[in-house]
Amino acid sequence: MPAAPSHPFDAATALNADADNHFTGHTSPAYANMVGPFGGITAATLLGAICLHPARLGEPLALTVNYAGPVSDGAFRLHTVPVRTNRSTQHWRVDLEQGGAIAATATAVFAARRETWSATEIGFPEVAPAAEVPVNPMPARVAWFRQYEMRFIEGGMPDFRVAPPADDTTPYDTTSTLWVRDDPPRVLDFPALAAICDVFIPRIFLRRQRPTPAGTVSMTIYFHAGAAQLAAQGTQPVLGRARAQHFRAGYFDQTAEVWSTDRHLLATTQQVVYYKE
Amino acid sequence: MPAAPSHPFDAATALNADADNHFTGHTSPAYANMVGPFGGITAATLLGAICLHPARLGEPLALTVNYAGPVSDGAFRLHTVPVRTNRSTQHWRVDLEQGGAIAATATAVFAARRETWSATEIGFPEVAPAAEVPVNPMPARVAWFRQYEMRFIEGGMPDFRVAPPADDTTPYDTTSTLWVRDDPPRVLDFPALAAICDVFIPRIFLRRQRPTPAGTVSMTIYFHAGAAQLAAQGTQPVLGRARAQHFRAGYFDQTAEVWSTDRHLLATTQQVVYYKE
Repeated sequence: MPAAPSHPFDAATALNADADNHFTGHTSPAYANMVGPFGGITAATLLGAICLHPARLGEPLALTVNYAGPVSDGAFRLHTVPVRTNRSTQHWRVDLEQGGAIAATATAVFAARRETWSATEIGFPEVAPAAEVPVNPMPARVAWFRQYEMRFIEGGMPDFRVAPPADDTTPYDTTSTLWVRDDPPRVLDFPALAAICDVFIPRIFLRRQRPTPAGTVSMTIYFHAGAAQLAAQGTQPVLGRARAQHFRAGYFDQTAEVWSTDRHLLATTQQVVYYKE
Repeated sequence: MPAAPSHPFDAATALNADADNHFTGHTSPAYANMVGPFGGITAATLLGAICLHPARLGEPLALTVNYAGPVSDGAFRLHTVPVRTNRSTQHWRVDLEQGGAIAATATAVFAARRETWSATEIGFPEVAPAAEVPVNPMPARVAWFRQYEMRFIEGGMPDFRVAPPADDTTPYDTTSTLWVRDDPPRVLDFPALAAICDVFIPRIFLRRQRPTPAGTVSMTIYFHAGAAQLAAQGTQPVLGRARAQHFRAGYFDQTAEVWSTDRHLLATTQQVVYYKE
């Protein structure tokens, strides 16, 4: 009997250990964006390389991915560097190289956590459970949209066929709140959570209600959950909420939260995004 | 006549260009923290190295600093790497080395911006102007506190002499809002703004109302202002607002905004902080 086909996410983030500290991978058409791969799958791949590394200590705490240049369809190479290992934290650097150029860089902090007093300062958004929110079809022209099941409570993809006139100055709200999971469903882990941190469509689509070229320049994720919490989440949808804070001179930022079904904060994430107006 | 003494901030962040891509610097007692230097002065120094680099393009857009290990009093060496230069963005890596080990790493994105449609999504906090808020004396035992003039509107340093009992579970608010500037006053620039992004005392001090060992592990800053806006701010205090989002298993995060006197968002910043309970 042939082996069961792996999940498209696992196929897209698969890596081969190469020389010491080096891995090779390949872009996946399933996670293609308008140009190049979905930034979330790149983040997941870079984080996944550290998770695979034999020297890795503990679990992800912080990840910053800088999208330095376009990634072309095809093979790429990752160079992982364990920069410093302390008693309970470990600092990493990862570069993604393709065709002799660095297309992405990342830094990550991993930590061996121990239980302490804990508390959540911000509130879980009061929304209907996922089962009561219909799945929204996303535009079929973007491949990676098809890898996620999205149930928007607010701030879904605008209908650009009814875009407002160019002189419209309405300050449309940029908040999106949605239940989201891999499609087909897949048990949550750190790379999948990293990818979900980038599923929010560019906030400028919402603010301007018209198509605008935009792309993430840098994304930072803080992982608040441990592996056991992610496993407990299983294949259930997580709740994401994102909004912009400031748009100026070609760049805007986005801040977002990802919550578990049982109201635990799994991750908080920021990104700065290029836009062309 | 001797040259006028430079500002302590300039003395603390001064660098000598060494070999190609290398700079040397020295810690400053004026910006000492409980252990090692104030994290903000380290961030300012790393960013300053890129600003000084002859290949530098444009202005800072994003900075992530990872505090990988303790920095001892004394000399250190910075290694700057221009990872990739595009038409309008430039990606950097900077390492801080001391005694043969890497004590901090940073990545930065610089950008040559051009004017576009712009907007602020979040609101300027409605607070009294700086002139109407008294300056708060901060504990003299921490040297770097003396380099800042802080006028707290809310969330100042708690009086630990009246710390609540250990079994107190009151969810004290972690928001701090303050007017802050260098003391003596100094015209704002990107390194000074980076340092100000780290002036907020650990949120766990506010949440628990008692002293708790804590230290920043990673900080990310998005610069929303350009050099002209910073120069226009001059020596006036900026408005900072910070709060925690989540505390779990030895780490919490902090999100913060820094606003100009004339209500422009200068920077947004996040950090993840170790705490011991």
